[in-house]
Amino acid sequence: MCAHVFLIVCDGMADRPIEELDGKTPLEFANTPWLDKLSEIGINGIMHTLGTPGIVPGSDTAHLALFGYDPHVYYSGRGAFEATGVGLEVKEGDVALRGNFATVDEDFNVLDRRAGRYVPEGDQLAEVVNGCKVSEAPDVEVIIKHATQHRCAVILRGPGLSFKISDTDPHATNEKVKTSKPLDDSAEAKKTANIVNALTQKFHELLKDHSLNKQRQERGDLPANIIILRGAGQVPDVKPLDQLYGIKSAVLSTNALYRGVAQSVGMEYIPVNERKDDYTFLADKALELFEQYDLFFIHVKDTDNASHDGKVEEKVKVIERIDKMIGHLMPKVENNEAYICVTVDHTTSVKAKDHVGDDVPVVIAGPEVRSDSVRSFSERACAMGGLNRIRGFDIMPILMSFLKKTPMFGS
Amino acid sequence: MCAHVFLIVCDGMADRPIEELDGKTPLEFANTPWLDKLSEIGINGIMHTLGTPGIVPGSDTAHLALFGYDPHVYYSGRGAFEATGVGLEVKEGDVALRGNFATVDEDFNVLDRRAGRYVPEGDQLAEVVNGCKVSEAPDVEVIIKHATQHRCAVILRGPGLSFKISDTDPHATNEKVKTSKPLDDSAEAKKTANIVNALTQKFHELLKDHSLNKQRQERGDLPANIIILRGAGQVPDVKPLDQLYGIKSAVLSTNALYRGVAQSVGMEYIPVNERKDDYTFLADKALELFEQYDLFFIHVKDTDNASHDGKVEEKVKVIERIDKMIGHLMPKVENNEAYICVTVDHTTSVKAKDHVGDDVPVVIAGPEVRSDSVRSFSERACAMGGLNRIRGFDIMPILMSFLKKTPMFGS
Repeated sequence: MCAHVFLIVCDGMADRPIEELDGKTPLEFANTPWLDKLSEIGINGIMHTLGTPGIVPGSDTAHLALFGYDPHVYYSGRGAFEATGVGLEVKEGDVALRGNFATVDEDFNVLDRRAGRYVPEGDQLAEVVNGCKVSEAPDVEVIIKHATQHRCAVILRGPGLSFKISDTDPHATNEKVKTSKPLDDSAEAKKTANIVNALTQKFHELLKDHSLNKQRQERGDLPANIIILRGAGQVPDVKPLDQLYGIKSAVLSTNALYRGVAQSVGMEYIPVNERKDDYTFLADKALELFEQYDLFFIHVKDTDNASHDGKVEEKVKVIERIDKMIGHLMPKVENNEAYICVTVDHTTSVKAKDHVGDDVPVVIAGPEVRSDSVRSFSERACAMGGLNRIRGFDIMPILMSFLKKTPMFGS
Repeated sequence: MCAHVFLIVCDGMADRPIEELDGKTPLEFANTPWLDKLSEIGINGIMHTLGTPGIVPGSDTAHLALFGYDPHVYYSGRGAFEATGVGLEVKEGDVALRGNFATVDEDFNVLDRRAGRYVPEGDQLAEVVNGCKVSEAPDVEVIIKHATQHRCAVILRGPGLSFKISDTDPHATNEKVKTSKPLDDSAEAKKTANIVNALTQKFHELLKDHSLNKQRQERGDLPANIIILRGAGQVPDVKPLDQLYGIKSAVLSTNALYRGVAQSVGMEYIPVNERKDDYTFLADKALELFEQYDLFFIHVKDTDNASHDGKVEEKVKVIERIDKMIGHLMPKVENNEAYICVTVDHTTSVKAKDHVGDDVPVVIAGPEVRSDSVRSFSERACAMGGLNRIRGFDIMPILMSFLKKTPMFGS
């Protein structure tokens, strides 16, 4: 029994036809011999990851879906994924938020949402505010960890909290830090919003005159004199993959969010260091650990980055690099030792520079797969494939079925 | 950013293969150069409007679905759509019904369900009963408006009403007017059924000896001596299109029901006068108002009428007239100014003379659409398209995604 799967998600790789590429999508235009080989020997399809055509998937909801969990049922905000991804343990009941060290004036007007992006003393600044309390809720613990650059994760731990609160981050400069508001009528949401607002004052108090900020200003950097918060979330209430399917799974990603979603559903984090212009290290790491895991989730972010930046040529190049990485995995498929599933979380239009609602392609290759007549991996070619239209959260059960890990419903 | 959509629904246009047409469907048989052009440059698919293959869609549920609202969640009877469509304001909590001026004998046997169809004094007859009260519910207001021929709309307005009641219309002649019954166990349904039954008596009392009916009988027409009721409904509890997507939308239809559904989801009614054998006036009106709306819903009923009448040749002709109308809109697509989506609410079999459960074709053409290999617009050709199988209520989010109006789920 072949017992291994590589699930490769190329973030935002799907696109729309582009005039400069002779009306092709970047994926159609790129030279991708290995992806095309997969389509040729595999079964192909199109899907909307969330199962709701036209609706624009977020990165978090799309990945939750690709791991087999319908986000309409299981999604509970982004914050917990990010906090998990930077190495904090988010417990049941915790509310986790994404934070930015930012610069405000004395009236809480945001002068820079990222305090100049350069925050080398982020770890120390986090220590200044980590563990602080607000008098409104002395029973609530505040845990803060620096991530990269200006980013940090904030966890509130205590009784009766809710993630149904709005951001304090105004998402724009020259606007005031927002007052967090409850997003439903619960006492929990009201309480949590109050804590977040008190905490925002506290952050400023603790940071504004701190010696670390005096040093920043002396060397000409903006003071990191507040943390603005967004994306409150709680860990999703899911049965993890190991319990659902009895598998051992691992995540290979250089980005905290995707690691966080993966870890939230039970995947183990395999540390990998980012390398520019080459993703083969991801494949090679998976091959190195091949016998230790049933499922490897490999995530490449650069296709999405190129799209958000509107860089068509760069997107094509990234796709060709992904193809090269897949080449490293092909022997495992050719020797019937593994399945490869390549797909995309959402379409990111390089022209719109944003996520759009269009479907994404998917291919599954490996032993005993009902191969179809599709000969190249692209948005349009895969739509003609044997999988037809599926939903993102169908992928994981399909893969697990090949591993003979899905339960029977009925008898 | 291209910001306009024409959503063209050809009522009951889809059909089954017909022997007299060499085994083709009327849509396959008809000469439709513009529809075929749309399929060639667009993305095609098949769908069941309600999302439940095999189940026969009604006109009201199918349109609610095409406007983006799953009728299994949002449908609340037909009556409110009809009443809205004839120009009455149906408020939250109102129960609206479709009425026929009919002819009964003294025992309430229905002699003619339509009082001979010829009711030129319909407005005056409606005034006779409009505003009447029943002693069973003095707090319930009764609003009656004549529509066309024998048809009228009836609204009950007051506290504690429900649309979950059965018809008084026996849907057959030589049968007694039916007693309305509650369709669930609620006190509201019981109360409403009682009111409707008392009202039925009242209608007869007020109309039977009225001078208008004496005049009718003197000139040889049947007396319109009762109103029989069917299709109780309430306005659906939907967030309208403008709130959902921030768009301005308009309905172009010569039929009250479709106007009513469209207006119930927030479309503005653009008055158009019916013209025989030509629908280009619908396209021309939309073009005239092009800059004022984001979405135009254009509805053609005659394909359905021809099907219900079992007229194959007429159906083919109507389809060719629709094609001509679409030709007027094509320059907007060719200039990248608009998307066109052409589809069908339900299959109406010209042989069965009725709605059947078969899927319907759909095409979307316009800027950046992932065109596929389909070259003609028909039930069978579109099933091979890149959209694959979708549900009727997927159409609106897909269109709104092209206008960049769909919300993101997640972040």
